[in-house]
Amino acid sequence: MAEVPLHGGDPSVLRRLNLAATLRGLRGGGEPTVTELAGQVGLSRPTTEGVLVELVGRGLAEEVAPDAGRRLGRPARRYRFRAEAGYALGMEIDARRVLLLLADLDGRVVGVHRADLEVDCPARERLTAVRAAVATCLAEADVSRSRLWAVAAGTPGVIDPSGRVAFCTVVPDWDGVHLARELGRSFPCPVLVENDANLAAVAERWRGAAQGVDDLVYILAGLHTGTGTVIGGRLHRGRWGAAGEVGVIPGLGLRDTTEELAGEPQPGVAERMAEKVLVAAQAGDPAARARVERLAARMAVGVAAMVLAIDPETVVVGGALTLAGDLLVTELRRHVQPFCLSPTRIEASTLGDESVGLGAVRLALDRIDDVLFRIEGPG
Amino acid sequence: MAEVPLHGGDPSVLRRLNLAATLRGLRGGGEPTVTELAGQVGLSRPTTEGVLVELVGRGLAEEVAPDAGRRLGRPARRYRFRAEAGYALGMEIDARRVLLLLADLDGRVVGVHRADLEVDCPARERLTAVRAAVATCLAEADVSRSRLWAVAAGTPGVIDPSGRVAFCTVVPDWDGVHLARELGRSFPCPVLVENDANLAAVAERWRGAAQGVDDLVYILAGLHTGTGTVIGGRLHRGRWGAAGEVGVIPGLGLRDTTEELAGEPQPGVAERMAEKVLVAAQAGDPAARARVERLAARMAVGVAAMVLAIDPETVVVGGALTLAGDLLVTELRRHVQPFCLSPTRIEASTLGDESVGLGAVRLALDRIDDVLFRIEGPG
Repeated sequence: MAEVPLHGGDPSVLRRLNLAATLRGLRGGGEPTVTELAGQVGLSRPTTEGVLVELVGRGLAEEVAPDAGRRLGRPARRYRFRAEAGYALGMEIDARRVLLLLADLDGRVVGVHRADLEVDCPARERLTAVRAAVATCLAEADVSRSRLWAVAAGTPGVIDPSGRVAFCTVVPDWDGVHLARELGRSFPCPVLVENDANLAAVAERWRGAAQGVDDLVYILAGLHTGTGTVIGGRLHRGRWGAAGEVGVIPGLGLRDTTEELAGEPQPGVAERMAEKVLVAAQAGDPAARARVERLAARMAVGVAAMVLAIDPETVVVGGALTLAGDLLVTELRRHVQPFCLSPTRIEASTLGDESVGLGAVRLALDRIDDVLFRIEGPG
Repeated sequence: MAEVPLHGGDPSVLRRLNLAATLRGLRGGGEPTVTELAGQVGLSRPTTEGVLVELVGRGLAEEVAPDAGRRLGRPARRYRFRAEAGYALGMEIDARRVLLLLADLDGRVVGVHRADLEVDCPARERLTAVRAAVATCLAEADVSRSRLWAVAAGTPGVIDPSGRVAFCTVVPDWDGVHLARELGRSFPCPVLVENDANLAAVAERWRGAAQGVDDLVYILAGLHTGTGTVIGGRLHRGRWGAAGEVGVIPGLGLRDTTEELAGEPQPGVAERMAEKVLVAAQAGDPAARARVERLAARMAVGVAAMVLAIDPETVVVGGALTLAGDLLVTELRRHVQPFCLSPTRIEASTLGDESVGLGAVRLALDRIDDVLFRIEGPG
């Protein structure tokens, strides 16, 4: 005697409910028969067949060719999710390079492309170089632009909710660039823009060092050091997209981290010097180790501020300063933990230099899923 | 043709759905007739009548006496929510006092009681004094202990998820006290314990300076300065209940804030001195103003760290150091905003010394509502 109406009894809502449930069932993997799928989703066989016709028509499902080696009799038809129906493009744009990751609807990466960028080039040239890199990436993967369903980009700085770079000290001439609109011109699909450390946090939870962790802080140790936060399994952007920017406070040790390690103020040179210091320290050089330890002690205040503000389960440390080995992470662990009141774990990123790009892929896929699994109508 | 089952068709779930919906309708206020209530909730008249019988039986609703001045004919029966069916007790326990707020199920405060506590007394004596204060408060309000449906207490320090004081520097002998269990012995209902600044944040959103604000940070400026955070409308406790404890980092200016203002290290004396400084500064005394300004500049780093970590819409500043006037808040505004990347507002608390106690009332009421409006069964 249900008197509480289910979605007002709107038949189009019920159709979408059934569609979404069936799609979810198919995406779970395997190649189910109609009967298996109907049982799994909890719909009748005729309803499931109707939904499958619609999904096949939309290119999201297809009948699997019957296995040639099977015994006599007509085999039951089997279906699979067509992950190649559409693609998500994730990108990281920073001062020195663009990284592009192209993934199918299951998040399988089918194309990777890296291109160097001029640190000091104007925003317009940077955008031109990004567009050229996108064209190359798509051509290499043999995926046409029209098959992109969503694009997301991560970049340093505060990104406002409209996708504009509201504040950026790391990339020259980047302040005020409406990146979502600029990139949007090149694509026939939604384009999202997000702070790079935020995306790295999302990626570490998806496929990195914080899988299954709902509350985490990511430390992106680079030229400056940025942070990203996931709370309750969701990216915490903050009211104006500026959450995690504790690095702007001078005393917290997160500004000019690369220069500090390199003992060299020129950005381009500092990065090469910093890498040398890290490699030498990793190899046991006492002077280099002392430098890394000094940097970790300095950064510990800012990292501890984030840990104490958020009280996450896990901190993941990644970024350019961790690519030469785990030493910075080990030292941070030693210097941060004395400040902390909780047994927060501090882990090294396991995604190399792809954290930001992978997070962008995840963000784009989430956007696609929002549409695929939308139950309410467009209104 | 809904094939997606609604709660598995469990009739007890449907009954609870109807009960919760009707209760919500009644709590909206007014004294609706059965027909009005049925229309508002979307149930049939007979179902609504059945639910009302159950609510009246449970003491949650009652028929309102018909208006004597009405015209002839039998008037339609009207019903109201019985907010006096149960009570929530909220308390603040700190080093120097206990504040008790007793509220009915609508959150109307029907009893307030304050008692001084000895700063240096052992935990056991503190608990005894709290119990005596509770007895007095209930007697004054003429509410028997058996009518309490939930109790919540706010206290300084890190409170672990079980309600134990895991870390506390402000209240002597308080570290390690299992406050939820100790208080639980005195009450026949659930007892919740939470960090004091966390509860103040909840209260400011409920009835204070941050109504309608989903993302806020509360700064409790007292002996030390604690912070509480609400994100997306929900209290953010952190993984181990330690969120917001940036004050433990020495350089952030949130430790020993009262002593710093007083220029006097003895806690009992420092509070009286600090109040004198604040009153003098408010009256325009230049030396006192300089002290307040110096404190604000020092605290600004810690407050900015919270603002930059969380990026809230609003910061509310309350606690003992704000009770003598808005000067500290004004000075904080001036010193914090240069650090910030977002137009976060900084507001003075409007709840006086009752923020923590009111937040405790809200927490207890939320617990009561969880039970009243529970739709799933106890399993």
